[in-house]
Amino acid sequence: MNRPTSAATPTASVNDLPGPDASALDVRLAARSGRLQAHTSGLAREHVQVNLAILPQDLADDFHRFCELNPTPCPLLEVSEPGSPRLPGLGVDLDVRTDVPRYHVWRDGERVAETTDLHDWWRDDLVTFALGCSFSFEHALLEAGIKLRHVEQGLNVAMYRSNIPTRSVGVFHGPTVVSMRPLKAADAIRAVQITARTPQVHGAPIHIGDPALIGITDLSRPDYGDAVAVLDDELPVFWACGVTPQAAIAAVRPAFCITHAPGYMLVTDRLNRELRQAH
Amino acid sequence: MNRPTSAATPTASVNDLPGPDASALDVRLAARSGRLQAHTSGLAREHVQVNLAILPQDLADDFHRFCELNPTPCPLLEVSEPGSPRLPGLGVDLDVRTDVPRYHVWRDGERVAETTDLHDWWRDDLVTFALGCSFSFEHALLEAGIKLRHVEQGLNVAMYRSNIPTRSVGVFHGPTVVSMRPLKAADAIRAVQITARTPQVHGAPIHIGDPALIGITDLSRPDYGDAVAVLDDELPVFWACGVTPQAAIAAVRPAFCITHAPGYMLVTDRLNRELRQAH
Repeated sequence: MNRPTSAATPTASVNDLPGPDASALDVRLAARSGRLQAHTSGLAREHVQVNLAILPQDLADDFHRFCELNPTPCPLLEVSEPGSPRLPGLGVDLDVRTDVPRYHVWRDGERVAETTDLHDWWRDDLVTFALGCSFSFEHALLEAGIKLRHVEQGLNVAMYRSNIPTRSVGVFHGPTVVSMRPLKAADAIRAVQITARTPQVHGAPIHIGDPALIGITDLSRPDYGDAVAVLDDELPVFWACGVTPQAAIAAVRPAFCITHAPGYMLVTDRLNRELRQAH
Repeated sequence: MNRPTSAATPTASVNDLPGPDASALDVRLAARSGRLQAHTSGLAREHVQVNLAILPQDLADDFHRFCELNPTPCPLLEVSEPGSPRLPGLGVDLDVRTDVPRYHVWRDGERVAETTDLHDWWRDDLVTFALGCSFSFEHALLEAGIKLRHVEQGLNVAMYRSNIPTRSVGVFHGPTVVSMRPLKAADAIRAVQITARTPQVHGAPIHIGDPALIGITDLSRPDYGDAVAVLDDELPVFWACGVTPQAAIAAVRPAFCITHAPGYMLVTDRLNRELRQAH
């Protein structure tokens, strides 16, 4: 979901690294071998990239149900068997332990490691959750000619904790985190239509206009990501955001968990266009 | 398109008059016999009601092309043969001269008659244009549980001349007239999705938010219809409006033409749901 704020070296310009037209497997193999250490935005761009949350089994059932009850911010694409590093629906040759360029390892809510390989951290009770990411709907918006300011400016999208509650399950609770993209009204109207066709990656916006109506007091101070200007002839358009489940996990401060590092996603064999419903 | 401002007697409560569940033919026959003299809002509610513009053939080709070039405000559903009072695509037993409860007859831009029967005015060179009407998409919005303030208050929808130009053809030109419905953001987002599926009846909104961006300076003073309040937690949502072609005709001040009286529509055999595209 998150893009890193700093402008990373475009991997497409490095000869032995995968670029925008690479296959998803190429990207995964480059991450697996350690050659790819950059963020994945723009790589294998036709392919679905996913957020990862890897939790011990004692939390997994509640988190699974939390995602099911809050599908708009937490669009679950696949859940692994306990202990298995495979997500067969997302790629035949896919290893959750190696195929992401950078991971964060957490103990009791504190980050204890940033790593490129999880073999030393893997446990038989870990369950991997793969969640859809706004890269997929942004791909559809950009294809339709809608300009996205944070993309043009090389910034991470602006994200805010709204006052829209999630449905809590067990220890998991918290507000819906939203991402905001400023758009002219005509583009906002088209963006509603385009993103409504991708319910598995956050779907249509959940709010347009006055941020105060969803509990956001200052657009210039996002809770996550980077601020972008909203011009006089634009509306702020808000989508449910994949940081919602991350924030719900962070609030629990689990004894142990693993996530991808923001912007360093798992690239899957699924195509963004597969996630679009027919018009 | 237009509803009359005054609250007419609900025809459904009059025993011998057609009501919400009447067939379209029942409504047309009631109009034809002179029994039905009320507006048609809410009658045969599953059925498409259309705006009529009846023009001499010397203007008809340009008007036809004007509608084709401006399909969002001028959604043409059928055009008659010159001199023919039939619109076979809209009803097998349908007579344009009698089946509307009230007509306006115009000479040189002045209204010269209000009548319930066109036999005395009919000419062999008249071409009838049937244009889609927002009743169809409002029906879809209401079915989806979206409340429309002007409907609840028994008012005509508020309409404004915007600064969005139409594409001119021959003598026909003018601004796009828009209708405005105030909606909460979540309903506005749903309304975009719902009305996008009915491109033959104005389709998705053409603007949301700041009215000044489309040349409207004061929402409390509509150019047509009745003002409704826009509450603090609402956005004004603007759709292209069937008054656009009416205004383009009025500006020409044709030597002769006929229209339906606002709110007194032609009820067709087509169903509103036929105009909806699949999800």
